[in-house]
Amino acid sequence: MTLPLETVRWRDGKVRVIDQTALPWQERYLELATVPEVIDAIQRLVVRGAPAIGVAGALGLALAARAAAETNAGEFLRRLESARTALAAARPTAVNLRWALDRCLLRVGAEVGRNDVRTLASLLLLEAERILEEDLALSRAMAEHGVPLLPETGSVLTHCNTGGLATAGGGTALGVVLHGAALGKRLFVHVDETRPLLQGARLTAWELARAGIPHAVNCDGAAAWILKTARVDAVLVGADRIAANGDTANKVGTLGVALAARAYGVPFYVVAPRSSFDLTIATGDEIPIEERAPEEVTHLGGVALAPPGAGARNPAFDVTPSDCIAGWVTERGVERPPFPA
Amino acid sequence: MTLPLETVRWRDGKVRVIDQTALPWQERYLELATVPEVIDAIQRLVVRGAPAIGVAGALGLALAARAAAETNAGEFLRRLESARTALAAARPTAVNLRWALDRCLLRVGAEVGRNDVRTLASLLLLEAERILEEDLALSRAMAEHGVPLLPETGSVLTHCNTGGLATAGGGTALGVVLHGAALGKRLFVHVDETRPLLQGARLTAWELARAGIPHAVNCDGAAAWILKTARVDAVLVGADRIAANGDTANKVGTLGVALAARAYGVPFYVVAPRSSFDLTIATGDEIPIEERAPEEVTHLGGVALAPPGAGARNPAFDVTPSDCIAGWVTERGVERPPFPA
Repeated sequence: MTLPLETVRWRDGKVRVIDQTALPWQERYLELATVPEVIDAIQRLVVRGAPAIGVAGALGLALAARAAAETNAGEFLRRLESARTALAAARPTAVNLRWALDRCLLRVGAEVGRNDVRTLASLLLLEAERILEEDLALSRAMAEHGVPLLPETGSVLTHCNTGGLATAGGGTALGVVLHGAALGKRLFVHVDETRPLLQGARLTAWELARAGIPHAVNCDGAAAWILKTARVDAVLVGADRIAANGDTANKVGTLGVALAARAYGVPFYVVAPRSSFDLTIATGDEIPIEERAPEEVTHLGGVALAPPGAGARNPAFDVTPSDCIAGWVTERGVERPPFPA
Repeated sequence: MTLPLETVRWRDGKVRVIDQTALPWQERYLELATVPEVIDAIQRLVVRGAPAIGVAGALGLALAARAAAETNAGEFLRRLESARTALAAARPTAVNLRWALDRCLLRVGAEVGRNDVRTLASLLLLEAERILEEDLALSRAMAEHGVPLLPETGSVLTHCNTGGLATAGGGTALGVVLHGAALGKRLFVHVDETRPLLQGARLTAWELARAGIPHAVNCDGAAAWILKTARVDAVLVGADRIAANGDTANKVGTLGVALAARAYGVPFYVVAPRSSFDLTIATGDEIPIEERAPEEVTHLGGVALAPPGAGARNPAFDVTPSDCIAGWVTERGVERPPFPA
């Protein structure tokens, strides 16, 4: 049995995260003591994956609450509100971050006046830790609902990293695969390397090797050919935000995989907790797509991959239309739009 | 006016090539003196691009002929045949290489008995140089036929490198773009970086910067999103082999771009000389797809991108089905199957 990953945890008054920028070369943990440190870790993708970002954001808010625990209620709430705004802006596409922050604030807001500030800070931390615990339970539930979609013996293709590293420690799409393998299914995993930051090659391959599951990395451009020729049974991906009609924002490259899966009759599943659903928006057209620095494309490890001065487009996400998706695996089962609230 | 590229030339009894593995960091030329050196250059992608490989192969055969010029006719032909076999095996997918080698051998074969060996060697070199000259003329003809497919002002997307570097110096798909810009069209080029070896980021961006044409590199996974959202007027790609029904083998990643272009109504054109057509095969199913070393995927510049021991799939090409392709731009015009012989 593989030890569960401790992707993000509250430890001795700090937020302890595994540094995903150092993987797979080094398994290193960072202790984040302030809100700016949490924001920096989210923006640099030290911690990444929509569910993990939600947990990290909630724990970041707990840091702010703890730092403001000696003030009065008005100042406490002002500081929390300010921390919430800053944390929510760290990454715009994933909806879990704002969902987790709002949930923590709502919990504390309901207790203001009835408790002193130190108690409010404790309550906020409890709520953040509850989100973390729930995330682990959600991963288990998604894995259980997703496993029947996998063959007993066969292969799947996945994009980006959606394992323990993308969550508090369980996983969404890759969590299903890990659980299926643990139950004895014989699975081979085609791993999209997932440029520009190679979360597939670096993180998914690392998690699969750790779990002893056979796999091969491929360039993102090879996914269509693999789907056409390699008898892939299913594609499983995560999500950063899902609109009411099922349009799904996920790591850039997902759309191309989905179009190829549709062309070659390979079922394409999204695995995501309900907190990744944003039913306030009708379609994917309303999802803001983060454009990250061109240097992520033109440079790798400080080395230039393109001529000096070359510009680059670097959308971090794309939106896969609902009609390319066979099902959305959540903690409640395999769902399809219209999704109940 | 941008100076034409001298991608591959006969110079002082050697084959002089620009070292495409050193671009864009360094503009360096290598002088290849023997058949094994030419094979090595083709396999390491020092020289690459189906038309350029054809020219390099023909000039490589001229090296063999020159080295055997002091032997008798029987030995001369045996050595040429052996060099042809070795050169043809250097890369299996592109058909131009075998086409060029066979053409040179046919030319010499027709003259055996009527000429001495030294004359045969000279005739072979003349034929190889004719192939080179013709390649430059073919590039011009393809550019002229392709330019009307481009908007006066707009954008195109391209995959891999299909400019001067992929040919003797003119270009196929990128040659059309370069010619259109030289004629005053205002074009923006979306450049797929083209993993694993980054021919787009390294070579296409270098050629576009050299010609002063605005462009941006993107990860291959972003191509579908760009085709959906960025008002791209056309996709232009090259080809390594085209079957009788129009199925087209090209750099891996092309298939995914073609499926996305079809989904979003962007016309997708193949630009290739008639020597890239293999009318002896009915469909793309018969095209052998070269699988290259996994290290091309898992390592970059000697740095590991994946955990130690991670396997990788590395098909160098994929096959785009004929029904995704709006037209094949050749030296004869914009063609569609059935192609005349």
